[in-house]
Amino acid sequence: MSGPAAAVPVPALAARDRFMQGLGMELVAGGEGHATLRLRVTEQHLNFLGYCHGGVIFALADAALGLASNAHGEIAVALDAHVSYTTAARLGDELSAVASQLNRSRRMGTYRVEVRNAAGALVAHFTGTVYRTDKPVPTELP
Amino acid sequence: MSGPAAAVPVPALAARDRFMQGLGMELVAGGEGHATLRLRVTEQHLNFLGYCHGGVIFALADAALGLASNAHGEIAVALDAHVSYTTAARLGDELSAVASQLNRSRRMGTYRVEVRNAAGALVAHFTGTVYRTDKPVPTELP
Amino acid sequence: MSGPAAAVPVPALAARDRFMQGLGMELVAGGEGHATLRLRVTEQHLNFLGYCHGGVIFALADAALGLASNAHGEIAVALDAHVSYTTAARLGDELSAVASQLNRSRRMGTYRVEVRNAAGALVAHFTGTVYRTDKPVPTELP
Amino acid sequence: MSGPAAAVPVPALAARDRFMQGLGMELVAGGEGHATLRLRVTEQHLNFLGYCHGGVIFALADAALGLASNAHGEIAVALDAHVSYTTAARLGDELSAVASQLNRSRRMGTYRVEVRNAAGALVAHFTGTVYRTDKPVPTELP
Repeated sequence: MSGPAAAVPVPALAARDRFMQGLGMELVAGGEGHATLRLRVTEQHLNFLGYCHGGVIFALADAALGLASNAHGEIAVALDAHVSYTTAARLGDELSAVASQLNRSRRMGTYRVEVRNAAGALVAHFTGTVYRTDKPVPTELP
Repeated sequence: MSGPAAAVPVPALAARDRFMQGLGMELVAGGEGHATLRLRVTEQHLNFLGYCHGGVIFALADAALGLASNAHGEIAVALDAHVSYTTAARLGDELSAVASQLNRSRRMGTYRVEVRNAAGALVAHFTGTVYRTDKPVPTELP
Repeated sequence: MSGPAAAVPVPALAARDRFMQGLGMELVAGGEGHATLRLRVTEQHLNFLGYCHGGVIFALADAALGLASNAHGEIAVALDAHVSYTTAARLGDELSAVASQLNRSRRMGTYRVEVRNAAGALVAHFTGTVYRTDKPVPTELP
Repeated sequence: MSGPAAAVPVPALAARDRFMQGLGMELVAGGEGHATLRLRVTEQHLNFLGYCHGGVIFALADAALGLASNAHGEIAVALDAHVSYTTAARLGDELSAVASQLNRSRRMGTYRVEVRNAAGALVAHFTGTVYRTDKPVPTELP
């Protein structure tokens, strides 16, 4: 690359993410180093106990991480993530995930995501580490 | 509860899990403390870069954890999970997730899940902790 | 137990913790659900590369977790912990670890600890989950 | 660097690690991608409840990770680590930590460490990710 990557618009990334779209995630806000997503828990998100599947909650946080860390314009790849589940999510709940950047060095980035329900209770606390490649985020889906 | 929980059949749990079904996860094997799932990466699993979304890989591992830990017959709730991503997954890849029980005490259980592609490469390494409630896993979806 | 546990003074806990004392950790502040510790990096903390060992940074955060979660007066046992390292720590650095409570339910507690150097840079971000037993924290070392 | 790093002897690394030495960790075996350490729990390792401090158990696993990942000859820096605690460790227990390499790509490495007591019970399960720098591990302490 000949210079710093140009920031890419987060709405364009979110709009072409098939997994996010299929699960019903909505972008509330996003920019370099931050993103906020929303998801209403519907039948498709339920596990065999009738609660929102933990994989849905993780996916919502992970999607926010992906947008926040790729918005800088270069491809950032998740290396690891940790989630603590604190409150169950139920059918009809509206969840929001807010990703914020804790640190960004030449090669790495660390992000925290808080998932809350409409009452403001913490549903999950998520931490993720990304590796910053030198490749620009493509403006079209490959 | 008046006695130890009775083991529940894992295929019945998997069959009524809407999130697993919607994402196309298939049960290969499962019993008390273990479960193996399979998923073929299709268009619905792709992220904005055209790769399998990290949330899909986590969800596959998490679903295996849920089956392995609830098969004992009492509801087990995930408290936390950690995932390390080691190899990217692509459209068409067939992923398998194998969950095994590392420890089970009166109140807690710890599980490891390895996700591999068809070539046997490690795609992700997952660790999860569950809390064992005293409630039996319902035989019908609530 | 016949009632809610009585809070125990954090300085008393810190003073009788041999591991904390041996590593040179100092209590700055502490109470129910929170604790702040300080440690100056000396020769005893260095790894084979001459930097502060990652185990020291984790231990500082973990000690803060232990104090914050046991201050409520009942024994809280760590189930899992995750640490992200963001900035290296060097000989002479003064590190501070601030633990705060994210959630506390009947059986569980989730805590975040941020470790920073004197310049305020984030050295490590730590998350820990504890299990709340019904046993009171003993006022004397067993 | 003009070529692949040369493997460095693990005993030399362990011998000059002041933190490992101060805590009484002994090297049992080590080479490229693996290491086994041993530690007897003594008074210096105890927390305010009289048990082995979780920070000691983590540090033992983390030290094994550091040796296994640096033995390849280039400096490998820990990015994150996760630990699940499964069995308490007590005064007099002899703990062993066995680190093994799960994956190693051009820039990253993922390692698992199992800590067990003399009876073979799993005390802790640890996963760590390292970033591989291009710098050779120095043969002398800097």
